[in-house]
Amino acid sequence: MNLFSLNYMDFEIKAKLKSSRARAGIITVPHGKIHTPYFIPVATSATVRALDQEDMNSLGAEVLLANTYHLHLKPGDKIIKKLGGLHKFMNWNRPLFTDSGGFQAFSLGYGMEHSINKLGTIFPEKKKAAEKQPKIAEINDDGVTFNDPSSGKLVHLNPKKSMQIQQNLGADIILAFDECTSPLSSYEYTKKAMERTHKWAKESLHHHKKSLIARKNKYKDKYGNQSLYGIVQGGAYKDLRIKSAKFISSLNFDGIAIGGSLGKSKEDMHRILSWVIQLLPENKPRHLLGIGEIEDIFKCVEKGIDTFDCVMPTRIGRRGSLFISPKSHGNLKNKFRINIKNLKYKLDRKPIDKNCECLACRKYSRAYMNHLYKSQELAYYKLASLHNLNFMLRLMEKIRDSICKSYFNELKNEWLKKY
Amino acid sequence: MNLFSLNYMDFEIKAKLKSSRARAGIITVPHGKIHTPYFIPVATSATVRALDQEDMNSLGAEVLLANTYHLHLKPGDKIIKKLGGLHKFMNWNRPLFTDSGGFQAFSLGYGMEHSINKLGTIFPEKKKAAEKQPKIAEINDDGVTFNDPSSGKLVHLNPKKSMQIQQNLGADIILAFDECTSPLSSYEYTKKAMERTHKWAKESLHHHKKSLIARKNKYKDKYGNQSLYGIVQGGAYKDLRIKSAKFISSLNFDGIAIGGSLGKSKEDMHRILSWVIQLLPENKPRHLLGIGEIEDIFKCVEKGIDTFDCVMPTRIGRRGSLFISPKSHGNLKNKFRINIKNLKYKLDRKPIDKNCECLACRKYSRAYMNHLYKSQELAYYKLASLHNLNFMLRLMEKIRDSICKSYFNELKNEWLKKY
Repeated sequence: MNLFSLNYMDFEIKAKLKSSRARAGIITVPHGKIHTPYFIPVATSATVRALDQEDMNSLGAEVLLANTYHLHLKPGDKIIKKLGGLHKFMNWNRPLFTDSGGFQAFSLGYGMEHSINKLGTIFPEKKKAAEKQPKIAEINDDGVTFNDPSSGKLVHLNPKKSMQIQQNLGADIILAFDECTSPLSSYEYTKKAMERTHKWAKESLHHHKKSLIARKNKYKDKYGNQSLYGIVQGGAYKDLRIKSAKFISSLNFDGIAIGGSLGKSKEDMHRILSWVIQLLPENKPRHLLGIGEIEDIFKCVEKGIDTFDCVMPTRIGRRGSLFISPKSHGNLKNKFRINIKNLKYKLDRKPIDKNCECLACRKYSRAYMNHLYKSQELAYYKLASLHNLNFMLRLMEKIRDSICKSYFNELKNEWLKKY
Repeated sequence: MNLFSLNYMDFEIKAKLKSSRARAGIITVPHGKIHTPYFIPVATSATVRALDQEDMNSLGAEVLLANTYHLHLKPGDKIIKKLGGLHKFMNWNRPLFTDSGGFQAFSLGYGMEHSINKLGTIFPEKKKAAEKQPKIAEINDDGVTFNDPSSGKLVHLNPKKSMQIQQNLGADIILAFDECTSPLSSYEYTKKAMERTHKWAKESLHHHKKSLIARKNKYKDKYGNQSLYGIVQGGAYKDLRIKSAKFISSLNFDGIAIGGSLGKSKEDMHRILSWVIQLLPENKPRHLLGIGEIEDIFKCVEKGIDTFDCVMPTRIGRRGSLFISPKSHGNLKNKFRINIKNLKYKLDRKPIDKNCECLACRKYSRAYMNHLYKSQELAYYKLASLHNLNFMLRLMEKIRDSICKSYFNELKNEWLKKY
């Protein structure tokens, strides 16, 4: 069985920095191109929260990431399949990622994992909270069984089922089913979870190949064809991360994602990425799951990451934090954010960020945004989300340009300089 | 003192039906033209709920109505004045109305009015609820004193203050301060409230004239100049409504609004409008406050109403009710609505309304809207509000055209035919 004849992804590296692993490229999948490094907005339930796909088009977003777990439960992946797949359902004609549902094994399985006393003692208050939580997930080598907290439904996920659900959804790029451990997990637990992730990686690949061949023979369709990324786990432990990076790289995945706990600090994260990335194949795109702080973006691009996804820009936006660039006094200390609910913005006629060309900045003042936030007007959530995502997408554009034209270090220094 | 030299509104009647009082015209105010009959979307806190002004531009909305009471409390009319007035604050460059805050005297004063036992016995469950409510407003001839339920602030409003607030906001068209009675109010109470409304009408006009002259001399500005509508009250009582229509018509208002209780049924409403409208001057625009059902729009246009405002389209939209036209099986029985949360829409690939060209109908299916609603996604509220308002604005367009081209009766019969 030759997977390469079924390869629906092309990844071309256009430029590489000499001073670091940073690189710019193009991922081509059936629904279009993704220019890397790229920040992928998260459309959890087939919509980026507070925005619709027309908004995402207006931002020039090239790709979105939707959540397998959420869509499996609501409206149901079979419903979406009947309606022609996720692209058609949400009317998004550009590339899509779906995650594997594995992250939910982490966030819902948290209580269970830690009630069996395998956690470190780093965040005692979290440990306490975890111990108090009822068992809502069971993880073993056969998969994960959840009690979905919002619907009460019992859900079982395993590699085969995750692949089936993701096939029903029909995203261009799908992820292998994995177990994501927490920063509190012991070496022993993290090792066990990594081994499970490796077993599941092979199973995910097996089910994916089988269905690709079946579909290729049956439909010869251009758009039904998906690419699969494997996920490197191993927590903050060097030998596990190295083992996992080597193992996942050895399999026939189209791309590699890095998941799981990245330690307790930014330094930990960068150390872990250094261990892992040097072992990954150059010719496959690398995705970093769930990371999105501006500082991290610069540093992880430098380490060789090609794509990111994170709900952070929309989530913090809804809570009042709006991004500002260095020209509007954004810096490491303020995390490139203003908090729009602050009294001092009540009479501020300036736009959120003077260099931003998003709808919110073109049309409205900080004073108006402060008012909308305080009045809990729904328009606030839209404008805040639009601004923060535009900010991220334009920043990534600049980062790509800086790699192609060799001024990445200057750009990074301008943004991350000491205040 | 000659008010006409200070008249900043022009109202031109372009067409009149022979078979009824229906008419089509153009109201011209400093920020632009309003083609009547018009349905004015309500931008309570300087934004139409779930939408921003760019959305309203995309719908071609000609005018919005904002709430004096809400803006007085948050962010404060003085803040808005400092920021250049309401148009600039919300970045809306077309005409604006503000109401007078008088309606809040009704909705907040409800408990007080009825705890002194002057109510009818029409809605016993409402009576009970009213009697249980604490006194949160006091109304006397000097004005209204509220305890604002959301902020706990003590607010005093009277004609002078309402005029001052509305001047600070700077809408093109403002309303006289009035007392709006409930359908439960007795004849005696309604009469007393009407007399108070008449006293306040003269006071509102007095303060308005004074400030117009002062500003004309001081600024000679084009945009600072406002037109004032008087409000006809009198509840469901014929002699009171006639008295009020005559009295308000006799004053030098730029337009006439009809407020207060319009009885207990659609028949009552139409009867009341017939009493009132025949007594109003032909050459002044007539606004019907707070009315917006599709059936009512047709029937009230027929009675001679020029403009309407109502939160209903956005409010019912947020709750799942989306408008459909007769061609999509909208009729009197279903009130031209589908309830998108209904299970039968889960697999419905059709747009909400097949004749609608709004963003929601152009891009998304009922199945997707059903999913967004059930997932409580913020995008739902935007798309639902956009659809329902587009539906109303396009219906009004058709109604105007039908008056100008004399097919109003056919249009009305097509929409309101028995099912």
